Amino acid sequence: MNEPLKHPINISASGISASGGDDFLNYPDDQALRRMCENEHPADLAAAFAELELEKAVAVFSSITSECCADVLVHMDYDSQREIAARLPDDVLARAIARMSADDRVDLIQSMPDERGESLLHLLAKKEREDIRKLSAYEEDTAGALMTSEYATLSPYLTARQAIDKLRLEAPDKETIYHAYVIDSERRLIGQISLRALIMARPNTLVEDIMRRDPIRVNVHDDQEAVARLMARYDLLAMPVTNGNDALVGIITFDDVHDVIEEEATEDFHRMGSISAGSGPEDLVDIGLRDAGPWLLIRKRLPWLLALVFMNIFSGAGIAYYEETIQGTVALVFFLPLLIGSGGNAGAQSATLMVRALAIGDVMMKDWFRLVGKEVAIALCIGVCMGIAVSLIGIFRGGPDVAFIVALAMVCVVLFGSLLGMSLPFLLTRFNMDPATASAPLVTSIADIGGVVIYFGIATWYLGLATVV
Amino acid sequence: MNEPLKHPINISASGISASGGDDFLNYPDDQALRRMCENEHPADLAAAFAELELEKAVAVFSSITSECCADVLVHMDYDSQREIAARLPDDVLARAIARMSADDRVDLIQSMPDERGESLLHLLAKKEREDIRKLSAYEEDTAGALMTSEYATLSPYLTARQAIDKLRLEAPDKETIYHAYVIDSERRLIGQISLRALIMARPNTLVEDIMRRDPIRVNVHDDQEAVARLMARYDLLAMPVTNGNDALVGIITFDDVHDVIEEEATEDFHRMGSISAGSGPEDLVDIGLRDAGPWLLIRKRLPWLLALVFMNIFSGAGIAYYEETIQGTVALVFFLPLLIGSGGNAGAQSATLMVRALAIGDVMMKDWFRLVGKEVAIALCIGVCMGIAVSLIGIFRGGPDVAFIVALAMVCVVLFGSLLGMSLPFLLTRFNMDPATASAPLVTSIADIGGVVIYFGIATWYLGLATVV
Repeated sequence: MNEPLKHPINISASGISASGGDDFLNYPDDQALRRMCENEHPADLAAAFAELELEKAVAVFSSITSECCADVLVHMDYDSQREIAARLPDDVLARAIARMSADDRVDLIQSMPDERGESLLHLLAKKEREDIRKLSAYEEDTAGALMTSEYATLSPYLTARQAIDKLRLEAPDKETIYHAYVIDSERRLIGQISLRALIMARPNTLVEDIMRRDPIRVNVHDDQEAVARLMARYDLLAMPVTNGNDALVGIITFDDVHDVIEEEATEDFHRMGSISAGSGPEDLVDIGLRDAGPWLLIRKRLPWLLALVFMNIFSGAGIAYYEETIQGTVALVFFLPLLIGSGGNAGAQSATLMVRALAIGDVMMKDWFRLVGKEVAIALCIGVCMGIAVSLIGIFRGGPDVAFIVALAMVCVVLFGSLLGMSLPFLLTRFNMDPATASAPLVTSIADIGGVVIYFGIATWYLGLATVV
Repeated sequence: MNEPLKHPINISASGISASGGDDFLNYPDDQALRRMCENEHPADLAAAFAELELEKAVAVFSSITSECCADVLVHMDYDSQREIAARLPDDVLARAIARMSADDRVDLIQSMPDERGESLLHLLAKKEREDIRKLSAYEEDTAGALMTSEYATLSPYLTARQAIDKLRLEAPDKETIYHAYVIDSERRLIGQISLRALIMARPNTLVEDIMRRDPIRVNVHDDQEAVARLMARYDLLAMPVTNGNDALVGIITFDDVHDVIEEEATEDFHRMGSISAGSGPEDLVDIGLRDAGPWLLIRKRLPWLLALVFMNIFSGAGIAYYEETIQGTVALVFFLPLLIGSGGNAGAQSATLMVRALAIGDVMMKDWFRLVGKEVAIALCIGVCMGIAVSLIGIFRGGPDVAFIVALAMVCVVLFGSLLGMSLPFLLTRFNMDPATASAPLVTSIADIGGVVIYFGIATWYLGLATVV
């Protein structure tokens, strides 16, 4: 987390921008660069620097202060950051890394080839080196990987005045001093206190008398999405992270929550579009579509497309099975795309609603039974409306028999698709898979198979009846 | 925003839960209720109370303190909140409203029938009444509707010590005191200062010497999504909101950002599943799938389904047009679902990637030209892989002629679908529509039409050639 007020700017009045800053940045002088670092927000500088040619960007990074260099690097997108870090001299980079917050520098070092990372570690102070090694050990997407070790702690026996003095002294090295954590002699988390409470308290009050005992905490191994949801639910500015012995090992700050919520939503989006999910910093979600290479995208897209092709063979087989019916009444083929399409679309809607509701915790596994009844009512109602609409076309294209067949098939197909779409996400959750794997294309493909069988099944049955009569 | 440390709990150790607290809550005594309010987080209480029968919930709300009542009401979901507020006596509700933060109480009063809202307003103090009227005036989904009027202001001529004293005195009435805003005599925003900076400064330093000038700000009429993205980009704890005269009128705090990001992602999700988007507090996104009534869901789902049916008529017409070709080589029909399905699926993937990338700002309008080249390369590569796979089936089902036709058609169909899927979101943005309107079902339906024409077009051409030879 960057202390947000370090470089506030009025955005519209900002002199620098991704497109407009090139000329100046191509011929920078040291004084102008220093002024720029002082006046612009690192996020804006990062966007501007990313547009420069690599060599010029490296030259600029080498001429600015270590602090500015650190702030800007942290705000760059993953690819630009890696490219520039690879070309910066070891000493420049090491000084910048020393100025980064603990969680940011771990991310940067982990993105480098192992030897480079090691040689950089040797340029850092022992304390920093050990801190990085410790934070690097946590698995990706866990609270441990997200947390920073720069939190403020207090002893329960300090007075409010002493506590404020301690926080004031430590402020430059901490991510936040607005929440401090009260620990015992074995670093166990026993309480939490806000700077607001400390300031409002009488100066001689003991911390232990005003702290909140037993604060909400998460374990280092907890999933980052669960942590983000918890922080959003309780509106927390920072969340303490403890290890198996309940000892405080880090905190997660509110700005990390935005990133996690957005990242997880993007992952679900991709899954819903039948794009394979993955993890690791090299993955699509982190790199972004703009910078992703063609091979990465092919690897993400091809597997599901091939799987769905083989699924669609069953639709083809269904059509082949009913060849006689089709040849008897060729007008039926006209309605095929329309009917199986409607089943797929209704299914995609239900799946979308359910996947998102499960993801944000609006719906739980136990709600399935209650929701099935509602879904049937809704699907029947929608199916009847669509059946009426399609039967009007049916009368014109094939007479009353075809109209009746397509109307009845429509109701059944929409019902089938909707129930499939709403149930599949639950079923996947039941088997510990991500509900978003019930992508629109997967639901559509299964609904297609059902649609073919239902449509031609009804047609064969009804036309058979007609022949008998 | 609730001061997060007011009721910290260790979640796993929490005695109350949505499922476990019923027995106790069914027979509450006043002392136990008071203890519960002190020890549990309002978010947990809200979940537990929402499971109670309405009458019992109203009884519980009437017996707890106004403060607890306010906190819990604010944390309830929209429907439960409205139901309970409708049944609480005017005086109980007015006392609770008086204790809510400014933005929360506006939301609650706006959810009520007009007469009830008016009669409640009359029970409030004049200052609060005017504040609510002012905040209610802003359009939904704007910064004005999201902001609160309870922010801390400072004069530039105060010393750091005086400023801290002022913040300490005002703390109980402010959403946050961690950022204070420096205004001139006409309430124009001239600077911003963090409590951290005030505490670290020497006591006699003037605020104007350490404040950050010209802080980032938004206008009351700015869109809430843009504000949320800005706050996430700059990692801001609070964002000042100004009116047309640059006078400070409110702040937006970090916890509102989570909600906005999540809400906007849900809206895009729904659009991508061809569920109509809407706005207003009565809408699906706010009510949630679990509590949404069947009629609301039918209204959201039916329009797109009907529109897509009429789109699919063109696919049917395409098939009818090529009836001769089909009757000549019936084996072709077997591959129809597989081919048009693949085009639709590839298109859904591209559209999903593009819609999400546009939504999170990873890709801009101007990137379209650059991305088209990449998309063509990727689609060709994917198309060739799938063409090879499908030609193997083609040889078995219909011989080398059919194999060649389906392989070639596969490449063309995947290319068509991909380009359609990636371009449609841009096109919609160009015409000021939401890119997510390019839903998977819409792209699939258009890709189907193209697929039918491409497939049977190639077949007619190739089989025609064969006949001539």
